Amino acid sequence: MGQNSRIRHAALQAKVTSAEHAASLIAPGSTIGMSGFTGSGYPKAVPLALAARIRAAHQSGTPFQVNIWTGASTGPELDGALAAAEGISLRLPYNSDPVARDRINRGEMDYADLHLSQVAPMAWQGFLGPLDTAVVEVSAIRSDGALVPSSSVGNNKTWLDRARQVILEVNRWQSPALEGMHDIYYGTALPPHRVPIPILRPEDRIGEPALRCDPDKIVAIVETDAPDRNLPFAAPDVVAQGIANHLMDFLGHEVARGRLPTSLLPIQSGVGNVANAVLSGLLHGPFEDLTAYTEVIQDGMLDLLESGKLRVASATAFSLSPEAASRLNSEMARFRDRMILRPQEISNHPELVRRLGCIAMNGLIEADIYGNVNSTLVMGSRMQNGIGGSGDFARNAFLSIFMTPSTAKGGTISAIVPQVSHVDHIAQDVHVLVTEQGLADLRGLSPRQRSELIIARCAHPDYRPLLAEYVERARHRSLGLHAPMIPGEALSWHQRFLDHGSMRPIA
Amino acid sequence: MGQNSRIRHAALQAKVTSAEHAASLIAPGSTIGMSGFTGSGYPKAVPLALAARIRAAHQSGTPFQVNIWTGASTGPELDGALAAAEGISLRLPYNSDPVARDRINRGEMDYADLHLSQVAPMAWQGFLGPLDTAVVEVSAIRSDGALVPSSSVGNNKTWLDRARQVILEVNRWQSPALEGMHDIYYGTALPPHRVPIPILRPEDRIGEPALRCDPDKIVAIVETDAPDRNLPFAAPDVVAQGIANHLMDFLGHEVARGRLPTSLLPIQSGVGNVANAVLSGLLHGPFEDLTAYTEVIQDGMLDLLESGKLRVASATAFSLSPEAASRLNSEMARFRDRMILRPQEISNHPELVRRLGCIAMNGLIEADIYGNVNSTLVMGSRMQNGIGGSGDFARNAFLSIFMTPSTAKGGTISAIVPQVSHVDHIAQDVHVLVTEQGLADLRGLSPRQRSELIIARCAHPDYRPLLAEYVERARHRSLGLHAPMIPGEALSWHQRFLDHGSMRPIA
Repeated sequence: MGQNSRIRHAALQAKVTSAEHAASLIAPGSTIGMSGFTGSGYPKAVPLALAARIRAAHQSGTPFQVNIWTGASTGPELDGALAAAEGISLRLPYNSDPVARDRINRGEMDYADLHLSQVAPMAWQGFLGPLDTAVVEVSAIRSDGALVPSSSVGNNKTWLDRARQVILEVNRWQSPALEGMHDIYYGTALPPHRVPIPILRPEDRIGEPALRCDPDKIVAIVETDAPDRNLPFAAPDVVAQGIANHLMDFLGHEVARGRLPTSLLPIQSGVGNVANAVLSGLLHGPFEDLTAYTEVIQDGMLDLLESGKLRVASATAFSLSPEAASRLNSEMARFRDRMILRPQEISNHPELVRRLGCIAMNGLIEADIYGNVNSTLVMGSRMQNGIGGSGDFARNAFLSIFMTPSTAKGGTISAIVPQVSHVDHIAQDVHVLVTEQGLADLRGLSPRQRSELIIARCAHPDYRPLLAEYVERARHRSLGLHAPMIPGEALSWHQRFLDHGSMRPIA
Repeated sequence: MGQNSRIRHAALQAKVTSAEHAASLIAPGSTIGMSGFTGSGYPKAVPLALAARIRAAHQSGTPFQVNIWTGASTGPELDGALAAAEGISLRLPYNSDPVARDRINRGEMDYADLHLSQVAPMAWQGFLGPLDTAVVEVSAIRSDGALVPSSSVGNNKTWLDRARQVILEVNRWQSPALEGMHDIYYGTALPPHRVPIPILRPEDRIGEPALRCDPDKIVAIVETDAPDRNLPFAAPDVVAQGIANHLMDFLGHEVARGRLPTSLLPIQSGVGNVANAVLSGLLHGPFEDLTAYTEVIQDGMLDLLESGKLRVASATAFSLSPEAASRLNSEMARFRDRMILRPQEISNHPELVRRLGCIAMNGLIEADIYGNVNSTLVMGSRMQNGIGGSGDFARNAFLSIFMTPSTAKGGTISAIVPQVSHVDHIAQDVHVLVTEQGLADLRGLSPRQRSELIIARCAHPDYRPLLAEYVERARHRSLGLHAPMIPGEALSWHQRFLDHGSMRPIA
């Protein structure tokens, strides 16, 4: 089948067309389920063509917007292009594109920030409305019509099942050796028909290696040859290294006390330089036979797999630097048996996170003295990315760890504040808080005990006295002393930052 | 065995003793796992004797405090007596006793407010420290030594397993027909040894009817004949009725749209007059063959069971008015086959709540215009009761509903505020918000859309213009317009209440 060897189903070969034609099949006002989770596995041609079509419509005075559902974040050719064309009405469930973010924060685009495990079941529940079109990148179409996913699975199974029509992008850039690595579970249902999900260990395979799709629903296939676009590797700086060191000490301590096995428990880790420092800490640490049950496989996990320290990594997507992505693409066959990509409702499923006993490690924007965490809204109002899967993992983890540098913006922002300006994770779901200053094990403590520990261990020394003074004042002015607070002052640090550019007191 | 026919194990009969002697076996500084969930099934004699011992010690200048772990709330003979004696150092995981609450809010007693499903696994994890003594009420001791639970199960299985020594109270007041009604699951474990919990429907029994306990650990048995003490039935007022009416309309609407079966899905309901109104609404409503998978079986559920509308109720405890409790006690055999009491880690297990697709219905203290909910802290600092199981259910429910009158304290407090003073449930976990004013279906909406709906449908008319003005001001002063907010003003309504006794603007 020559050039078309990625499309091994004869009838579907006939549906190969241009991105422009495919985009012409998408109606204004419709809802589109796109593939993509981090900068991996998102469609790279049809959204660009759709953005061009939308711009042309707008230039001729015709309104044209669509609703975009995805796995999580995507690349600039999708969120960036469609947002720049003012083409998105409602976006869900997670975004990290700067152009889309800007429109969300100018109030020009509605954004529904959802727990990632819940998107697929919510789409089935029906209250999100019908799904008109699925636009899904795959790495190949098998001769039986089944679709081999590419570098992310996300919500693709659900989009293909629910959409009225399907547009595929077959991306030659994706490694042919991806085939066989995915595990697509077809056992989910709406209640009262739900059954236990039979994963007992991160390496368990419970589904099929490819996505089912009714060929009659496929209206267009576009061939592409374009790389995923994830962020470059962020090397750990001294602050990230400090955080990782505290965390490694703590994990060692928990193992020594018999509260964790020497192989730890399945780790969940986000991306970014702090996460990279932690994975590097594990690479050089004493723990062996590790596993990961997580959202994304990032650079550090590849290193851990290669070293033999990590036995298996289960996720829903890759989130690799361009260098690591090319390395993996050329060596996929070597890694494939120890990596599993699953639908995100399975990678993030609360049932499985609780059963496996994950060690969740997530970043944050700010935490307060009682241990509540804000992961999404800068100064309580500006959306950064979204809650992602952090709520799926933190609520159900065996150990829920949140990590952050103790200050931001040159020390003008304290990551530890009297009260967070927005809450994504309540104190009950924050077991351990770590900054480069130190680590606070908050498990089983009262608010008073938590505040003492967080101020002493986690806050930057510049802000410690200010926090302690606030607590002292609150002890005199608070309605209750269970968790002393002064409503009129609790968010004053944020207001001061907005008014004067710093949370530090005015001299 | 005459008078001791509730104690059918010969060797254990020899351990019958006085409450005073039993209490003398409890050391100062130790940690005690008590039975009890709402005012049901808590020990009624030993805590009183312990309180007397503590008071005596204090009078002689000797410090004496203990840590108290329970299922949830208990009765005045436990929390009230020990708190009045200044005998509690740390209390977890839930309290509704007014004396204990007062001490917590005077900062004289540490209180750790935990998700109820997580208490047992946390006790196993070990970071809460060792459990010295279990004090557990049972309704009988079988000839094989197994313990027949009484009117609540709570964490009793875990306390019996973990404690170094066990004190039992055998309460003759509890119906002998309780035997056979409980379902004690012994399949839980710490990771990596956890397996699926094999409940597929609320009526599934997966365990044993009695609690196991090593007879050698039992150091004292005290016989009692004392009633549980739950609150009297709170008759629905016109406001509660209004809330229930909106909710019944909504459920009917969801059934009509095919988004819920006509038998709905397993309901979870709290206690109080709003919950009573909802259960009464179900009693007179169109839905048949209902089920409940919930924490407590309250008066309204008995009526539903009797009417035949409710097929089965699974919970961890009864929470019945004194009248309903005596009625049930005399007719237990009639109801027993359609009621199941389980350990609270099973009644509240996220795996099961998600699988069964519960309809969670919980009360609140306040909600904000974006849908965040405060269930625990009045004015952000004064502990009311605790988060209880609301987080277990709301995060994993098929439909998570929160209900409240739109105002409190004669209209001086608005239940809908610009920003909640404390967050227990993030907006993602609040699908539907109901007041007597109306109902807001928030599913899949952006913050802007949610705020418009909540202000228009749920807020009291007196506060609507104030909320709308705040949003308008925030649109001009907010850092981001995703969820506009003004840090310096967001909690000003609470400060105004503290300073002037009302959230209404100063004239």
